[in-house]
Amino acid sequence: MEQLQTIKVALLGFGTVGGGVFELLEKRKEEMPDKIGVEVEIKKILVRDKSKKRLGIEQEVFTDSWNEIIEDEEIQVVIEVMGGIEPARSYILEALCAGKHVVTANKDLLAEHGKELLDTAAKYGCDLMFEAAVAGGIPIIRPMKQCLAGNDISEIMGIVNGTTNFILTKMSEEGMSYQEALKKAKELGYAEADPTADVEGYDAGRKIAIMASIAFHSRVTFFDVYIEGITKITEKDIAYAKELGMRIKLLGVAKHIEEGIEVKVHPMLLSKEHPLANVADSFNAVFVHGDALDDAMFMGRGAGALPTASAVVGDLIDVVRNMKFHCNGRIGCSCYKEVPVKKIEETSSKFFMRLQVKDKPGALAGVANVLGNSGVSIAQVVQKAGDGSFAELVVITDVVQEGSFQDAITILGGMSMVKEISSVVRVYA
Amino acid sequence: MEQLQTIKVALLGFGTVGGGVFELLEKRKEEMPDKIGVEVEIKKILVRDKSKKRLGIEQEVFTDSWNEIIEDEEIQVVIEVMGGIEPARSYILEALCAGKHVVTANKDLLAEHGKELLDTAAKYGCDLMFEAAVAGGIPIIRPMKQCLAGNDISEIMGIVNGTTNFILTKMSEEGMSYQEALKKAKELGYAEADPTADVEGYDAGRKIAIMASIAFHSRVTFFDVYIEGITKITEKDIAYAKELGMRIKLLGVAKHIEEGIEVKVHPMLLSKEHPLANVADSFNAVFVHGDALDDAMFMGRGAGALPTASAVVGDLIDVVRNMKFHCNGRIGCSCYKEVPVKKIEETSSKFFMRLQVKDKPGALAGVANVLGNSGVSIAQVVQKAGDGSFAELVVITDVVQEGSFQDAITILGGMSMVKEISSVVRVYA
Repeated sequence: MEQLQTIKVALLGFGTVGGGVFELLEKRKEEMPDKIGVEVEIKKILVRDKSKKRLGIEQEVFTDSWNEIIEDEEIQVVIEVMGGIEPARSYILEALCAGKHVVTANKDLLAEHGKELLDTAAKYGCDLMFEAAVAGGIPIIRPMKQCLAGNDISEIMGIVNGTTNFILTKMSEEGMSYQEALKKAKELGYAEADPTADVEGYDAGRKIAIMASIAFHSRVTFFDVYIEGITKITEKDIAYAKELGMRIKLLGVAKHIEEGIEVKVHPMLLSKEHPLANVADSFNAVFVHGDALDDAMFMGRGAGALPTASAVVGDLIDVVRNMKFHCNGRIGCSCYKEVPVKKIEETSSKFFMRLQVKDKPGALAGVANVLGNSGVSIAQVVQKAGDGSFAELVVITDVVQEGSFQDAITILGGMSMVKEISSVVRVYA
Repeated sequence: MEQLQTIKVALLGFGTVGGGVFELLEKRKEEMPDKIGVEVEIKKILVRDKSKKRLGIEQEVFTDSWNEIIEDEEIQVVIEVMGGIEPARSYILEALCAGKHVVTANKDLLAEHGKELLDTAAKYGCDLMFEAAVAGGIPIIRPMKQCLAGNDISEIMGIVNGTTNFILTKMSEEGMSYQEALKKAKELGYAEADPTADVEGYDAGRKIAIMASIAFHSRVTFFDVYIEGITKITEKDIAYAKELGMRIKLLGVAKHIEEGIEVKVHPMLLSKEHPLANVADSFNAVFVHGDALDDAMFMGRGAGALPTASAVVGDLIDVVRNMKFHCNGRIGCSCYKEVPVKKIEETSSKFFMRLQVKDKPGALAGVANVLGNSGVSIAQVVQKAGDGSFAELVVITDVVQEGSFQDAITILGGMSMVKEISSVVRVYA
């Protein structure tokens, strides 16, 4: 009988996700030979402080030396879960050059240096898998690269940041203010001490860049994405959304239309009937439209140790299956087109705008004139009774050029009858 | 420069799905070399009547002779979309024996003869792919076999029949009777002239058998599935569901618990907050629970020419990628366990029961006694004012053994104070 082969793996990073990957691989250890015909062993774990005691794991598994891993010819797969650009980028490139396959959960890296990494993987015939980099445990990369490969995908829209979805859910369902909801998210470990990357939309921006690249077969980087976060969303906006039968969600939106690719992250008003509107708390979901598939949605846990580990271990199993069949690299970069990404001004949106205007006749007409002159047509207006000096005016536009709308906003902001433009939120059309 | 290779394919069947596959492959024809480095040509289409004119397709492509296809060594992939057990089964087996890869949308065949087909594919080193056999365009087979391969999946629950979901949606949202909704479904082409396979739950039963086999790594066939359809659901049941804040859906449910696998198809009351409760019209959705992943849901079009073609072409692209890397068969049958399937009586459910009882003191006590004596505990009772002779009683039980509940039903049915057991519907717990 042939002896069971053992695939040896190195884990770079032992934080939340690294711990999850270790735990899940331990849990599945005995089943691996049945599952994929080999055993899987984590031979080395790269950490900053190798002397730190970690219960139940032998000390010699830990190392603080990358050289020890890259020079170890027994290690055939590297799992990178340390995050950040450097040294992760260099380690991954070196690993690929050395013929080691790579599984990574690193969205920052993929969204900024995806092409370099995938080109290097292709050059050395290695796998580079990153299902965990987008929407945590939810299968989305492989479904798009394989299951939906027959489609022309024209749109992806996703709730791909659990922290902001939790905050917006608390604001909507429990009437919390943004600050209260953020505090709650921190208490529950959904938000980091510095929540900037989440609440400003950068995290979602990285994910939508990666998904857009795959969906449209054309490289989209983090720097191509127009990004607005949720920090300016107020209780009043949430209340108006409810009144209009809608909900506010932070969405990553990517569209491929004739003239190019649109790719944005911003809060958006969605009808509460839309499947994404009902994705609550820290859940993530990705909505895809393909010409054959029609609409589809994938929902699940977008973060957390074990959901992310689920994606990482799924990738690792795929890498091992490829190793057994000597077909690593069979699905690499799928960007075979070069489609330009449109500037935000050239894209179109429908807008919700809330402003404080002087409570006297002619104010609405003044606002309407400015919008009309800028080519912004109005779909709906709500004017609440004022206090004698100021009144709140809510305008919902038709779908208009972003550039035209921004021009109108600039003019409105300078008008004496407009005290304040309190909020501008896009509306799903 | 190397000349571009052409992969030649045969299509078995040219009905709705076959037409969709042809249309989609034509649409993607020019992009295939960029996508997968080869051209794809449908060399032959097997039909009953080859003399029938089909606009825009050359007559010589059509054949009524299977021999012409099986003996053609240029044909490397067979796409089976004719449906039914025979001759599809024989054709697929012969194709695999001849070293031709197979893509099929045939749920009947997979649910009854899955093992035979997959074993044959493995023996001849061929791919046998069937993403289209479950939930149409929704990626579910590949996500379970690959993306979620690191999980211990304990539960799958799905709305996997669009016809019945359409009917139940119409009953719930527009107050239609079952017969009216069925008529509407036929008018719109959602239901066939003979709707038996859909409304009796057989179609859903085939799909849940296939999904359970993959999720639990143990072969489950159509004959293992306990099946109840939706023909007995009345407007009254729908009205009670609403009153209770729930919706009735036809669900395929498969669970892997310590003592074995439970696999059933039946209508079920679900809280309207449950993600599956909001899957309306002819949409399908599959809910999966994995130990690492937690909850996830996949939603989309479960039928129709192009959504099904989306899955078929995705499989075909995967087969071609495998051909290029000489790794066909890399992911075959994943049933490496043998877990017993439990008898329905041994499984547990929570029940909604509606009965007509004599409108006199002691009726409720009588019913409660029978339930109690059978070991069925009651969670909730609703008694409506009667007409002096009969009153309607609704009982919702706790989670109880199906066997105990059936015993209680038998006794209740024989009691003089019980005029009729009007309906029994399971409740999601």
